[in-house]
Amino acid sequence: MRLVLFLTLLLASTPFFSQSDDEKQIKAIYDKALTDGQAYEWLDYLSNQIGGRLSGSVQAQQAVEYTKGQLDSLGLDRVWLQPVMVPKWVRGLPEFAYMETKPGLTTNMPICALGGSVATPDGGLKANIVEVQGIEDLQKLGKDKIAGKIVFYNRPMDPTLISTFASYSGCVDQRYSGAAEAAKYGALGVIVRSMNLRSDDYPHTGSMSYGDTPVSQRIPAAAISTNGADLLSTTLKLNPNIKFYFKQNCKQYEDVQSYNVIGEIKGSTYPNEVMVVGGHLDSWDLGDGSHDDGAGCVQSMDVLRLLKKTGYKPKRTIRVVLFMNEENGLRGGNKYAEVALSKNENHVFALESDSGGFTPRGFSLDCSDENFDQIQSWKSLFEPYLIHLFVKGFSGADIGPMKNPDIVLAGLVPDSQRYFDHHHAENDTFEHVNKRELELGAASMASLVYLMDKYGIIPASKIKG
Amino acid sequence: MRLVLFLTLLLASTPFFSQSDDEKQIKAIYDKALTDGQAYEWLDYLSNQIGGRLSGSVQAQQAVEYTKGQLDSLGLDRVWLQPVMVPKWVRGLPEFAYMETKPGLTTNMPICALGGSVATPDGGLKANIVEVQGIEDLQKLGKDKIAGKIVFYNRPMDPTLISTFASYSGCVDQRYSGAAEAAKYGALGVIVRSMNLRSDDYPHTGSMSYGDTPVSQRIPAAAISTNGADLLSTTLKLNPNIKFYFKQNCKQYEDVQSYNVIGEIKGSTYPNEVMVVGGHLDSWDLGDGSHDDGAGCVQSMDVLRLLKKTGYKPKRTIRVVLFMNEENGLRGGNKYAEVALSKNENHVFALESDSGGFTPRGFSLDCSDENFDQIQSWKSLFEPYLIHLFVKGFSGADIGPMKNPDIVLAGLVPDSQRYFDHHHAENDTFEHVNKRELELGAASMASLVYLMDKYGIIPASKIKG
Repeated sequence: MRLVLFLTLLLASTPFFSQSDDEKQIKAIYDKALTDGQAYEWLDYLSNQIGGRLSGSVQAQQAVEYTKGQLDSLGLDRVWLQPVMVPKWVRGLPEFAYMETKPGLTTNMPICALGGSVATPDGGLKANIVEVQGIEDLQKLGKDKIAGKIVFYNRPMDPTLISTFASYSGCVDQRYSGAAEAAKYGALGVIVRSMNLRSDDYPHTGSMSYGDTPVSQRIPAAAISTNGADLLSTTLKLNPNIKFYFKQNCKQYEDVQSYNVIGEIKGSTYPNEVMVVGGHLDSWDLGDGSHDDGAGCVQSMDVLRLLKKTGYKPKRTIRVVLFMNEENGLRGGNKYAEVALSKNENHVFALESDSGGFTPRGFSLDCSDENFDQIQSWKSLFEPYLIHLFVKGFSGADIGPMKNPDIVLAGLVPDSQRYFDHHHAENDTFEHVNKRELELGAASMASLVYLMDKYGIIPASKIKG
Repeated sequence: MRLVLFLTLLLASTPFFSQSDDEKQIKAIYDKALTDGQAYEWLDYLSNQIGGRLSGSVQAQQAVEYTKGQLDSLGLDRVWLQPVMVPKWVRGLPEFAYMETKPGLTTNMPICALGGSVATPDGGLKANIVEVQGIEDLQKLGKDKIAGKIVFYNRPMDPTLISTFASYSGCVDQRYSGAAEAAKYGALGVIVRSMNLRSDDYPHTGSMSYGDTPVSQRIPAAAISTNGADLLSTTLKLNPNIKFYFKQNCKQYEDVQSYNVIGEIKGSTYPNEVMVVGGHLDSWDLGDGSHDDGAGCVQSMDVLRLLKKTGYKPKRTIRVVLFMNEENGLRGGNKYAEVALSKNENHVFALESDSGGFTPRGFSLDCSDENFDQIQSWKSLFEPYLIHLFVKGFSGADIGPMKNPDIVLAGLVPDSQRYFDHHHAENDTFEHVNKRELELGAASMASLVYLMDKYGIIPASKIKG
C-alpha cells in the first residue's frame, strides 16, 4: 500500500524524463551546498579576517587577493583580475553629533557621514535645524526658512510594503540627493533619517551625490539612527529653536587602482556564449559587509564550485564576477560591460546576488516575455526548495550596464524583512548571516544557472523573426 | 499610458467583486499589523519581564496573569482562565559535565538535563561512553557493550532536508525515548546530541519519556551541544576508553494548578461555531521562550485584536487560546479538547502558531480534501504577502486533541531555517525575533481566520451526502 502510494507520487512528479534529469541535478546541487558548501567559510574569512571593504581601501585590495586565491584553488579554466580605477573616499573618524536644547545642555546623537560627503568645517557645524518629510518640502519652505540651517530629512520607510526594497526606493532620494537639493536653498548641512525600518541606534551610511553642485557649495551630509531621528523630531516639536552640532572629517582622494575578480569555466559546446554570476566585493566601512555583499560574492563563487563538484559540464562559458565599487561608483560593473562590449563578447545571461544572504524566495527577472515564460516554466523544479517567486523587475546594479535586447538579467530575491536592519550599518556582520540560508541561496543560483545553460535563452531575433 | 497599464493590472487582479472585498480586508489586516501591531510589545514583556515559563513555575503563572490582563483590555466579549493541572519538573542548577581523557585530565562539556529526566546520583555519574547513531544501534551492540556505560546518541539532523522540522522528526526519537531504550540494556545514563543543525555551544533541552520503565530503573539523560557532540565523538575515535562525567539535580514534583488563557469574540450569525487561534504559553526554562512559543501566543492574541481594529465582525465565535504545558505534557491542549467535548461545543476550525516567529511562508493543513481545495482557492489572496505554501500536514500539538472528521486544523508555517538554532536553548531570546516577521505572521493568521469565518468550512456530512 505504501509502495503503491510512493510510486504514484513519483510518477506524478516526473511528467517526462528530461525533467527528472533536471530534478536530479538540482537535488545534487542543493545536497552539495547544504552538506559541503564553501560559501560560509569564505564569508567568515572575508568578514572576520578582512572586514569592511570600502573601495580603494587596503581591505578591498586584500579581498581582491583573497578571492582570487580561492578561485585559483577551484580548478577553473581561467582566473584573472580586471583592472578598474575606483574612487577613494575616507570617513576619517571620529565623527560626532549632539543636539543642544539649551546653551550647554546637549544630548549626543548617533550619526555617520554619508558616503561621498564633504567634511564639516574643522570646528564642526552648529546651526538651527528644520525638519522635512522629503525633498519636495524644500520648495514649500523656501530659502527664508532653510538658509543658514541644517535640513533634517525624516521621511520614514513605509512599513506597509511587504518588500522592504520597495520601502527603501521610496525614501532613498533623501539620502542620495538631499544635500545637493538643500544646498540650493542655502542649507549648511543635512541630516538624513537612516534607511531602516527598525527602531534602533545604528546610523546607516550609503552613497550620496552632489550632482553638479560646485565644490565650494557642497554641504556635509550625515545619517542619523532611527531612534535618534525620532528623538530629534520629538524635541523639535517641543522647541523648534534647538541647535544641532555635527563634526565629520571625511575626504575624497584621487582615484586608485583596483580590480574586478573573475573566474570562468569554459563552455563545452558554445564557449562564446557567456553567463555571469556575481556580487560586489566592495562594501561600506561601518560593518564587515557580510550581507552587503560578501554574501553575494561567496554565493557566486560557490555556484561555479557546486556545478563542478556535482559533475556538471556547462555547454556555455560560466563566469563568476566579483565587481568592485558597486557602493559608491559602480565602476566595476561599468568596466566589465565596457570590456565585454569592446571584445564583442556575447553575454546571454547574468545573475546577481546583492540583496543579502537570507533565505532565498525567488528571482527578479529583467528580460523579454518569452524568456520570462521559459523561466516560469521551471517553477515546479524550484518548489521543493521553497523558491516560489518569479517576477519581472530589477536584477542587480553591477550587471545592469550589460543590458541589451538579448540578454536575460536576473537578481536573487532573498527574504527582505531583516535586510535593512543591517544594510550599510555597523551591524552588517557575520553573525547575522545564517549558514543554511546562505547555502540555500547559492544552490538556488546554481540551479538557475544550470537550467539557463542547459536550455539556453531565446534571442530577440528569434522572437521577432 | 501608465494609467492604462495601472487599470489593466487592477482589472487583472480583481476577477470578481467579492474577492476585491477580501483583498481590501486582508490589506487592512496587514497594514494594521505592520503599523500598529501589538504582538512585539507583548512579546517584549513576556520575554524580558517574565522570561522562561516552564509549566508549574512562578513565571508560567505570571504569564497567565499578564496575558489575561492584556486580553481583558482588548474589549473582547469574554476572557477566562481554564483550570488544568500540570506537571512540575525543576532543573535544579547547577548541572555540569566533563570528559576525562586521562585520569585527572578533563574537558568541560556543555550539557543540560532533558526535561523530565531524573537526577544523577548525588556525586554525579562517571562511566565509559558508547556512541550510537540511533536507538536501532542498541540491539546491534547488545547488553555486553552497553551495560555499565553512558550511551551517547549522536545522529545529526539531516541537513539536506529543506524543512528543518523534517530533519528534527528524523532525530528526536533519540531524545524522547533514548533513555528508556538504553536502560533496557543496562546503560547508566544517556547523552543526546542537541537537535540543532548549527555547530555551536548551546545544549538544547526538550521533553523525554521513560515510558513504562520502573522508577528504580530510570537513568539520567542530558543534551550536549553540537560542538560538544562533535568533540566527544572525535575524542572517542582516538580513545574509546575515555570517561564521561555528568551531574544534574533535576526533580519531578507533584502536579500543580495552572490555566489555559482564553478570550473570545462572540459570532454574530453562528455563535455556536467556534474557531480557535492559539499558541502555548509555557516554554522551556533555558531561554525566554520567545520563538517557542511566546511568538505564537502574541500573534494569536493579535489576531483577535487585528480583526476588531479593522472593524471586522465575525459571523462565528473566534477564540484565542493560550495553552499551558505543551512542552512537557500537553495537558492544556488535552484539557481544552476535553472541556469542548463535554460542553458539546462545535469547533470548526483551529489554527496554531508554534514554529517560531519567523517570516511566514504558508500554512500546513490537516483537513478533508474538500476543505483543502477551498483554502487553496484563496492562494492568490495571499500571494501579495509572499505566502505561497499551502500543504497538507501536521497542524499543531495543542490543537491536535480536537481532531474530528469535520474540523479544519491548521498550522502557520514560518521560514524554518533558523528555528532549531534557538529551539529549547539558552539563545531562544527576544533579540532573535524580528518585529516585522512576527507581525507578518500575525497578519497571515488573521487573514486565514477572516476567510474561514467568512466562507465557513465544508462539513464531512455535506461531502458524504
